[in-house]
Amino acid sequence: MLNAIFWSGGCARHELSDTLEFSRSKTNALAAGLLEQGLLDEVGLQLSRGGRRPETLRIDSQMGVVIGVDIGATSLDLALLRPDLSVVAKHSQTADVQLGPGPIMSRLRTLIPAMLAENGIAPEDVLSVGIGVPGPVNFAVGQLVNPPLMPGWDSFSIRDDIREVTSAPVFVDNDVNLMALGVLWRQHRQIQDFLIIKVGTGIGCGIVCHGELYRGASGSAGDIGHICVDPEGPVCRCGNRGCVEAMAAAPAIVEMAVEAAQSGRSPILAEKLKAKGRLEAIDVGAASRAGDAASDAIIARSGHLIGQMLAALVNFYNPSHVFVGGGVSGIGPMFLAAIRQSVSQRSLALSTRHLEITYAPLRNEEGLIGAGVLAMREALRIGSVAV
Amino acid sequence: MLNAIFWSGGCARHELSDTLEFSRSKTNALAAGLLEQGLLDEVGLQLSRGGRRPETLRIDSQMGVVIGVDIGATSLDLALLRPDLSVVAKHSQTADVQLGPGPIMSRLRTLIPAMLAENGIAPEDVLSVGIGVPGPVNFAVGQLVNPPLMPGWDSFSIRDDIREVTSAPVFVDNDVNLMALGVLWRQHRQIQDFLIIKVGTGIGCGIVCHGELYRGASGSAGDIGHICVDPEGPVCRCGNRGCVEAMAAAPAIVEMAVEAAQSGRSPILAEKLKAKGRLEAIDVGAASRAGDAASDAIIARSGHLIGQMLAALVNFYNPSHVFVGGGVSGIGPMFLAAIRQSVSQRSLALSTRHLEITYAPLRNEEGLIGAGVLAMREALRIGSVAV
Repeated sequence: MLNAIFWSGGCARHELSDTLEFSRSKTNALAAGLLEQGLLDEVGLQLSRGGRRPETLRIDSQMGVVIGVDIGATSLDLALLRPDLSVVAKHSQTADVQLGPGPIMSRLRTLIPAMLAENGIAPEDVLSVGIGVPGPVNFAVGQLVNPPLMPGWDSFSIRDDIREVTSAPVFVDNDVNLMALGVLWRQHRQIQDFLIIKVGTGIGCGIVCHGELYRGASGSAGDIGHICVDPEGPVCRCGNRGCVEAMAAAPAIVEMAVEAAQSGRSPILAEKLKAKGRLEAIDVGAASRAGDAASDAIIARSGHLIGQMLAALVNFYNPSHVFVGGGVSGIGPMFLAAIRQSVSQRSLALSTRHLEITYAPLRNEEGLIGAGVLAMREALRIGSVAV
Repeated sequence: MLNAIFWSGGCARHELSDTLEFSRSKTNALAAGLLEQGLLDEVGLQLSRGGRRPETLRIDSQMGVVIGVDIGATSLDLALLRPDLSVVAKHSQTADVQLGPGPIMSRLRTLIPAMLAENGIAPEDVLSVGIGVPGPVNFAVGQLVNPPLMPGWDSFSIRDDIREVTSAPVFVDNDVNLMALGVLWRQHRQIQDFLIIKVGTGIGCGIVCHGELYRGASGSAGDIGHICVDPEGPVCRCGNRGCVEAMAAAPAIVEMAVEAAQSGRSPILAEKLKAKGRLEAIDVGAASRAGDAASDAIIARSGHLIGQMLAALVNFYNPSHVFVGGGVSGIGPMFLAAIRQSVSQRSLALSTRHLEITYAPLRNEEGLIGAGVLAMREALRIGSVAV
């Protein structure tokens, strides 16, 4: 019942008995017990349906906090969240996962106790910790498995490391899976079959099937970065030619931008390169907004290549929604337009008739919110909230 | 409980209480009731686990029959099946779906009563009818939706037409979905996440996710025939270039075979073409077995193109098994070898480490058995067996 209330974001008793297919009296009795234990509270008034006004049941926000951590390829985000996933405190910084687990884990071991202390939260009030990482994860044991963007992290146990600063249970998953969980929760599980694509340093995909996160037979589902979009394309670090990640993710965009700057095709990018000494994907977005045609072409090319790959996945998977997130998705509206155009051109009419392709709805907080969803879901599953 | 017994293919009471998470006494009481109603029977003796020897519970095979129908692009198969899906009688003939629903449906309206009469089965003993068709289906209403291989069938209600000869409920689904259901049943649902590819006149895919058939948001999941494998490839009837179906399915194989025959590269195929006036995919298989190098090359090319497309799906979906079925899969072992080679070359190690790619296990009867599974599953769901 707590699980149903968590996913609904708060609901009335009659909605709950419909969802759970429990009788009204069973629902009322269970809710009374949970209210008494302090696991639920009752807030506000919902619109009347004619009879007695139902109260909205929510997970008790005073029950404790969960910690959400989003380890990106180049960033580290951390949040303390209430059980309804409202943010108590948040911290973001740049970080480089390529340096191995040492620097990032020691930063986390300092940050977590400091954030708890600053916000007056006792360590024993932490219900659980959810952590997203930019690589394939063996979810059962919480270890990374040959992560290509994270040399030195293979078989490293993030879970054991974090246990030094909290006795709360720790759960680790791939960052894109957590983005999918974040969106699933935000949509109250109403969207049953969708994809979320993350375009950043790499390209990955979270898959939701029948309202549940789908991890695949060995946990690597959604690993779409090395799908071929051009058999004659450049050689990727995986050894094959024309992988979408090698041709359309942030490093490829930067490479095209440097080329446009140095060849004289883009005076704006040339100036930026001179001033900063290097270029980033966001510089291409800024140049495009300033009217730079070469930057427009780079963004369109990346979007078209991703759309071409996505067209195959849309034919195969027939999702109702595709959400596009990750750092590169902020590069400008032309990016999404190019993706949509390629998909509608290359996918079957039946698959795209009701398909919506939009930017991810949580303003780049999908990963962090998703880490919180993972933490809450697992805490409810293993019963650590009731201890 | 009947459903669990159906999917298990027969099981002991203690297995059933484990599967259903029912107490032993609840399981025994339910089983006794179903035995008394004649919906279950008890057969043989299973190996003892130390105590009293458990009897195997099965759906009562005298309960009635289901009718399975597999409408292929060029064939019509029909079977009367017992509730355990053993075949009572079977009929196969060539047929051409391109002629529209008239000829095939009138054939079915004749065949069904004749087969029932021949086998001494009363029409009221038919529990339900499952029908597979080679095109996209709106499962809820049992109608085809713009089927590219089936002109004239758009919005045709197979269900209403069949009702003229039986009052049993009729269920219609895409043929590849039924192949997936057939394999899922044969494996007692032990394989949770797999794909089944059908290569015949077209190329389609059935998807099983978390042990359930996945149809997609609008029922077109698995429609993989128009995934691009060569941006510079020939123009397909869908208007795009390089669709895998246009380059690797039976018509493309035949086209390559005719070209090899006419150009003199394959004396065997030239002789066959002269003798028959036309070539089929199986002729290429026979020529390959007779040592024809040109036929080997055609088979390898088709397999490599399909494997290239499949590599993308394996990266995305991370299935534990991929089954290859359909008419073209009988073309020879080189076909499967080429598929496997392309997939292992182009997919990520993590996705392929435990991946098995094999021919479909039901010797081309997946579609018919799957139609029977659909019929039984739906009959159990709507309770028509208990009437």
